[in-house]
Amino acid sequence: MHVIAAVRDEEGPQFLDIPKPDPGPDEALVRTLRVGIDGTDHEVLDGNHGDFPEGEDYQILGHEAVGIVEDPNRTRFEVGDLVVPTVRRPPDETNEYFERNEPDMAADGDYLERGIVGAHGFMATYFTSPERFLVGIPDEFADYGFLIEPISNSEKAFEHAQATRSAFEWNPKSALVLGNGPLGLLTLAMLDRKGFDRMYCLGRRDRPDLTIDVIECLGATYVDSRETPVSEIAAAHEAMDFVYEATGYAPHAFDTVRALAPNGVGALLGIPDDWTFQINGGQLHREIVLENKALFGSVNSNVRHFKAAKESLAAFPDWFTDELITGIYSPEEVEKAFERDDDVIKTVVEFDTP
Amino acid sequence: MHVIAAVRDEEGPQFLDIPKPDPGPDEALVRTLRVGIDGTDHEVLDGNHGDFPEGEDYQILGHEAVGIVEDPNRTRFEVGDLVVPTVRRPPDETNEYFERNEPDMAADGDYLERGIVGAHGFMATYFTSPERFLVGIPDEFADYGFLIEPISNSEKAFEHAQATRSAFEWNPKSALVLGNGPLGLLTLAMLDRKGFDRMYCLGRRDRPDLTIDVIECLGATYVDSRETPVSEIAAAHEAMDFVYEATGYAPHAFDTVRALAPNGVGALLGIPDDWTFQINGGQLHREIVLENKALFGSVNSNVRHFKAAKESLAAFPDWFTDELITGIYSPEEVEKAFERDDDVIKTVVEFDTP
Repeated sequence: MHVIAAVRDEEGPQFLDIPKPDPGPDEALVRTLRVGIDGTDHEVLDGNHGDFPEGEDYQILGHEAVGIVEDPNRTRFEVGDLVVPTVRRPPDETNEYFERNEPDMAADGDYLERGIVGAHGFMATYFTSPERFLVGIPDEFADYGFLIEPISNSEKAFEHAQATRSAFEWNPKSALVLGNGPLGLLTLAMLDRKGFDRMYCLGRRDRPDLTIDVIECLGATYVDSRETPVSEIAAAHEAMDFVYEATGYAPHAFDTVRALAPNGVGALLGIPDDWTFQINGGQLHREIVLENKALFGSVNSNVRHFKAAKESLAAFPDWFTDELITGIYSPEEVEKAFERDDDVIKTVVEFDTP
Repeated sequence: MHVIAAVRDEEGPQFLDIPKPDPGPDEALVRTLRVGIDGTDHEVLDGNHGDFPEGEDYQILGHEAVGIVEDPNRTRFEVGDLVVPTVRRPPDETNEYFERNEPDMAADGDYLERGIVGAHGFMATYFTSPERFLVGIPDEFADYGFLIEPISNSEKAFEHAQATRSAFEWNPKSALVLGNGPLGLLTLAMLDRKGFDRMYCLGRRDRPDLTIDVIECLGATYVDSRETPVSEIAAAHEAMDFVYEATGYAPHAFDTVRALAPNGVGALLGIPDDWTFQINGGQLHREIVLENKALFGSVNSNVRHFKAAKESLAAFPDWFTDELITGIYSPEEVEKAFERDDDVIKTVVEFDTP
């Protein structure tokens, strides 16, 4: 079968032919339809994130997939069921996090991640998966079901944000998304259904720009970080009840405190490299305390968040998914699929159609 | 009646005689027994925190009080009831935070604080208070009931910490308190009842030391910050599920991230001045995200937290309160009551006895 992989000592995504996998006990065989590409795939390719499966010289890429069950193999699925796989898998042995269906809370070493950390991903004609890591989705999601994984990360972040503020009555009205990449835009569309009156999205692009169009069509305000730094957004626009950071730009994590309204909460999702810089730590510390602010990190997601993401995806307007997906490529065209440009929002590799 | 006040252009606490207050509608008149002194009182005295009541040249100090109802004045209380007052009061008009009994979540401008922000405190022979800001306590709390206010701040912090981690199964086992001042020690005693297996408390004192004795008698481990900085505690001892910061030393707010275990949460309560310094913001941001860590600020407390603090105080061992209170002074001895020394943990001004 065809796979797209990171290969040791090779640059860029490689197109390989390897044998079709055999499903193990409790595993279904899935025929892949589409696999989305995100920033993490680029980092894996560049060797900056995750690691290859033990003892192997390549890693199949891809962690945002949708496929069709080809061989249920005594799982609860039937031939033809549309499914989306979750990303984390137990290492050699299972552990408490997987036992209670919270692999997203497992610490480093307590999980593998398909396509990222020590396990093969889904950019292949077929993949296998234990049934508990497959989420059934309606047939009409064949084209865009691969978006459920990235949306699920934001569902988790928002769930945790609400939990963080659950000791008092919190009625968030304003939300700011830092980052106009695909995850930022998906999050903006997701937040559109969470009851916010006013939404903002930060980027650093000149008009005319595809992402600014999407932001404005979602009814949100575009904030150009070159004109209005995160630390000045509260003064220039308004203080935010919720900030979602998806830039991986470390100063944003700290400037988020300044952007928050009293009792606000910031969710951090970016994964920056080491970077030492100055902050007014006294001011930040004081503001966090006197204004009851909160900041938390969020990584990965679990089946509950995939199910919430299904609901969000179902409610997205058609124009949004159409605008978001700027390229659909065959496995043979993989290099194009990985190209990055201002005209590219999100691309997808299509292995098959339903 | 006697009051102890900060007076404009005067240094140190002043002993004044002013008329006894008349309770307004819905207010009870309370005869003060004891009022505790904490760091905030020193900051108010030094002009570094809060402000005087509008149009006045003095502010009665004190926000940690216990007293006896002298005139219930048609409130639900009876003559002789032991009560503790909460600290926040509405400004000219009430607002949503007070309406829903969450004044601790009100933003700057939406509250006054008795003894701190724009309102007279409780260091007076008598004080008046609306009944909704008085919490009834059992008679046996006459001596130590003034500790309920500081404990309530930690009850709020712990309640918010649990809320922050309520979207997943969190079983915290290790706790670290930053700061061996009275609030740090009270928090350590409070946490002793919250199910932690191992507790640590950070200070910068040489042995023999009263606070180290208290820490060890509570079964906690003393960590000397001069030997083990906060950023190295995880390596030297263990990573912490819960960190409570009560130092007001701004680098601690950021080093807390390093001290936390995966899925851990840090509560910040200190109120530092501006201070610019360097951090490895990339590393902190990345650790917060990849390890699902959280950080939040907590200030003040509401009636629910006062009630929780009653339970905590009732469970404190007698030796603890005896060791903690290192001085009981009459109003005339107020200068001594405000002296700070390594032999002083917490002092109290006694206006009357039951």
